[in-house]
Amino acid sequence: MTTSATLGEIVAALGGELDGDAARRIERIGALAEADAATLSFVAQPRYAALLASTAAGGVIVSPALRAQVGAGTATITTADPYLYFARLTQWWAARRDPPEPPGIHASAVVEPGAVVDAQARVGALAYVGRGARIAAGVVIGAQAHVGRDAVVGEGSRIAARAYIGERCRLGARCVVQPGAVIGGDGFGFAPDRDAQGRWVKIEQLGAVLVGDDVEIGANTCIDRGALGDTVIAEGAKLDNLIQVAHNVRIGAHTAIAGCVGIAGSATIGAHCLIGGAAMIAGHLEIADHVRISGGTLVSHSIKRPGHYTAVFPLDDNAAWEKNAATLRQLHRLRERVRELEKKTAG
Amino acid sequence: MTTSATLGEIVAALGGELDGDAARRIERIGALAEADAATLSFVAQPRYAALLASTAAGGVIVSPALRAQVGAGTATITTADPYLYFARLTQWWAARRDPPEPPGIHASAVVEPGAVVDAQARVGALAYVGRGARIAAGVVIGAQAHVGRDAVVGEGSRIAARAYIGERCRLGARCVVQPGAVIGGDGFGFAPDRDAQGRWVKIEQLGAVLVGDDVEIGANTCIDRGALGDTVIAEGAKLDNLIQVAHNVRIGAHTAIAGCVGIAGSATIGAHCLIGGAAMIAGHLEIADHVRISGGTLVSHSIKRPGHYTAVFPLDDNAAWEKNAATLRQLHRLRERVRELEKKTAG
Amino acid sequence: MTTSATLGEIVAALGGELDGDAARRIERIGALAEADAATLSFVAQPRYAALLASTAAGGVIVSPALRAQVGAGTATITTADPYLYFARLTQWWAARRDPPEPPGIHASAVVEPGAVVDAQARVGALAYVGRGARIAAGVVIGAQAHVGRDAVVGEGSRIAARAYIGERCRLGARCVVQPGAVIGGDGFGFAPDRDAQGRWVKIEQLGAVLVGDDVEIGANTCIDRGALGDTVIAEGAKLDNLIQVAHNVRIGAHTAIAGCVGIAGSATIGAHCLIGGAAMIAGHLEIADHVRISGGTLVSHSIKRPGHYTAVFPLDDNAAWEKNAATLRQLHRLRERVRELEKKTAG
Repeated sequence: MTTSATLGEIVAALGGELDGDAARRIERIGALAEADAATLSFVAQPRYAALLASTAAGGVIVSPALRAQVGAGTATITTADPYLYFARLTQWWAARRDPPEPPGIHASAVVEPGAVVDAQARVGALAYVGRGARIAAGVVIGAQAHVGRDAVVGEGSRIAARAYIGERCRLGARCVVQPGAVIGGDGFGFAPDRDAQGRWVKIEQLGAVLVGDDVEIGANTCIDRGALGDTVIAEGAKLDNLIQVAHNVRIGAHTAIAGCVGIAGSATIGAHCLIGGAAMIAGHLEIADHVRISGGTLVSHSIKRPGHYTAVFPLDDNAAWEKNAATLRQLHRLRERVRELEKKTAG
Repeated sequence: MTTSATLGEIVAALGGELDGDAARRIERIGALAEADAATLSFVAQPRYAALLASTAAGGVIVSPALRAQVGAGTATITTADPYLYFARLTQWWAARRDPPEPPGIHASAVVEPGAVVDAQARVGALAYVGRGARIAAGVVIGAQAHVGRDAVVGEGSRIAARAYIGERCRLGARCVVQPGAVIGGDGFGFAPDRDAQGRWVKIEQLGAVLVGDDVEIGANTCIDRGALGDTVIAEGAKLDNLIQVAHNVRIGAHTAIAGCVGIAGSATIGAHCLIGGAAMIAGHLEIADHVRISGGTLVSHSIKRPGHYTAVFPLDDNAAWEKNAATLRQLHRLRERVRELEKKTAG
Repeated sequence: MTTSATLGEIVAALGGELDGDAARRIERIGALAEADAATLSFVAQPRYAALLASTAAGGVIVSPALRAQVGAGTATITTADPYLYFARLTQWWAARRDPPEPPGIHASAVVEPGAVVDAQARVGALAYVGRGARIAAGVVIGAQAHVGRDAVVGEGSRIAARAYIGERCRLGARCVVQPGAVIGGDGFGFAPDRDAQGRWVKIEQLGAVLVGDDVEIGANTCIDRGALGDTVIAEGAKLDNLIQVAHNVRIGAHTAIAGCVGIAGSATIGAHCLIGGAAMIAGHLEIADHVRISGGTLVSHSIKRPGHYTAVFPLDDNAAWEKNAATLRQLHRLRERVRELEKKTAG
């Protein structure tokens, strides 16, 4: 399935100032280095500006500052923020290429009595909607997806094929949930029974998951329901794939979290944070707004001030690593030896 | 869906000594700090005892030692282990709020010929049960879940929606499997074909997964089938979400494993261990009973004695980390310099 | 479900030189230490050779060099590469034990109009195949699996139950996709809207995932579709469970990646690499062919030469770790103190 559009159509839909032939036909959006005459490209970072003079792209989206550097054969769309324009272009392009399926409930879907599915929503093949669930207008429930009892999916949200929304969980408007995501599995809670040799007794997780508007949740990411209250993902937060969000975590608005991150129970993460891939955040701590955590970093205590935080062992070839790692295990003793030397030489 | 109960009903069901109005109606279980007159709360740790005098909770579950500190307006349920009582209360409350669905096989489920589903089991909408599978009494197979050929699910186990139990895998009684879990994917085994430039030849995984009684397996957690023998999860073990358990691993009884942990092939983990989130355990090693591993720790060799083990780079702000990390790459040389200084000053 | 075979049948099918009774019946393949007279075992590594004289195995697969060490009661199959022979034996054994299901489309599957399913392919119960998808001969689509619109699955590939192949993604021949894998979720791409207080605007992911021949993809592993071009997994690559492959990553031929690895966007990994479990690879970097990365290692910059690379904090008991970790946070200062000492003692 492919699509195409003229530069004129694009600017009519998305704005920007066109300098070039409005009838030029664009067949793909692509990187500057690999562009041809049917490609519309963009430059978001000044370091790619050098490519502008020589690109074969049919058109390029640029900021006013870079416009003069574009070669003669390439049309320009000038806009204050080319990257943002590009994002909107991908949305427009995707909708043009893949027009939305019509609303309705597929004959093979199971919608339990008492579920309310808006006439303008779509429920895909082999999907399941539990009793009491409410599916708003414009929602798309993908094939084989699951919306549990009394769950709520807000207007215009897209639940991909094979995603899972557990009972009583509530999603806001315009959310995107990727395939395999599990929203509302049980939190991990057990009490030890000391009279029974350390057997664990399950603490039923009575809360749910509350997801704000405009949240994206990645493939196979898990967000557990709260033990008593709810686990909360605030509006605009973006979660990548294979992330674990434990019970009663709170994630602030517009925070973006990369893949493979784990967040332990009752951690509170601020708004506008950036959490790098595979970072791990311990439970019962707080991270302030506007904190950036490097990938692979384990956060073991609260972070109260905005800033950039890291905890990663530096990469080395294995032989050098072995020597340094062995020494690291003696590091405290090494400091004591330095202290002794300082005493000795002080006299 | 909500529920409520009087304090008298609770004590009649779960025991404990009630001091207060048995007719008082409880509408929720909740934390002490946010409690109101319809809330039943609990104090499991002495550090929260200070809240007892001033709480607005209608009732509180306490140990005998703390009972005297509870304010006059709050009823008490006194019990030796308040946290354990709380766990049992959540179970009682959940069963009251969400009565079990009646047994039976949903019309949209596919149960292959030769599968044996007990009349007291429930198979949900769009679920699949393969031929030769055996589903015991009291089992709930959730919507869209999968039980493969010749698999066995023991009495009273709950297989959540969209969980996967592969062919020939066997689960004990009262297990809980969360959504998206994969029990019995193939182990990762390949032999290099040196005559074919390092192509890999798949080793079919002929074993299965054997899960004991009272095991919980988290959302999107994967437990691979054994290569020849079985992968074994002993009774009472509790696994959180997004855990990887490779082929032929053995996990001991009542061991609890937090989210995002990875356990490589043929590792043997003892009983009553606690494995912190995102810990990684190398293959072909043994961990003794009663070992505690900190979150984020990579275990690269066997641990033969009970204890608490850690391997985590300490968190710092990025600028400080950069300096220390750069120095760490010279650590072995630093030790040599200290040694030279010691020689020099010894004379 | 069990099977058995005589040594003669095995050698007739797989080659090798048999020394012993061709009529001896083998009922299982197993490890040397636990073998009995109905077990066929193998020795791939010389360090297990000591077990050969005393094993109770009915037969053993050995290299010519070890053949003489096998005890008298044990038959031998001699072959140049016993481990490779074992791999092929498991394939032969599995096919004998579990003969393939007949081709055809299960009555409960949903195959959209415009999908092309070869007459020699099998589509399991409750599976979904989107319009325009093409399923080649010999393919098995497991129960409840999903093949999206315009996706392509090449000859002889096995898509396990509950796996997901997204729209327009293309798999080669003889691929194996384990349960819960998500191929073709959206890449994680957002542009900040500075005029809207840091809200994120989704970049629709217009590319797909291109998977070569003979690739294996593990349970609950995620491979995101490309933003503009495709994410590419080259032929013969093997990916274990719970791996995250971000958009526009390229993984070279015959590279093997263990569980829990994360690979960030636009990273390029060479051919014949070995990536250990839970390694994390940052985005926009390159790793050369024949590189080995230790488990748990974070790769933060390109690796241009073959070799073995590591970045792991060494394991210790918690008390020792605490001392060393505290000192590590002062490491840069420690180096300065050594430098001062060196100056002092130089005079």
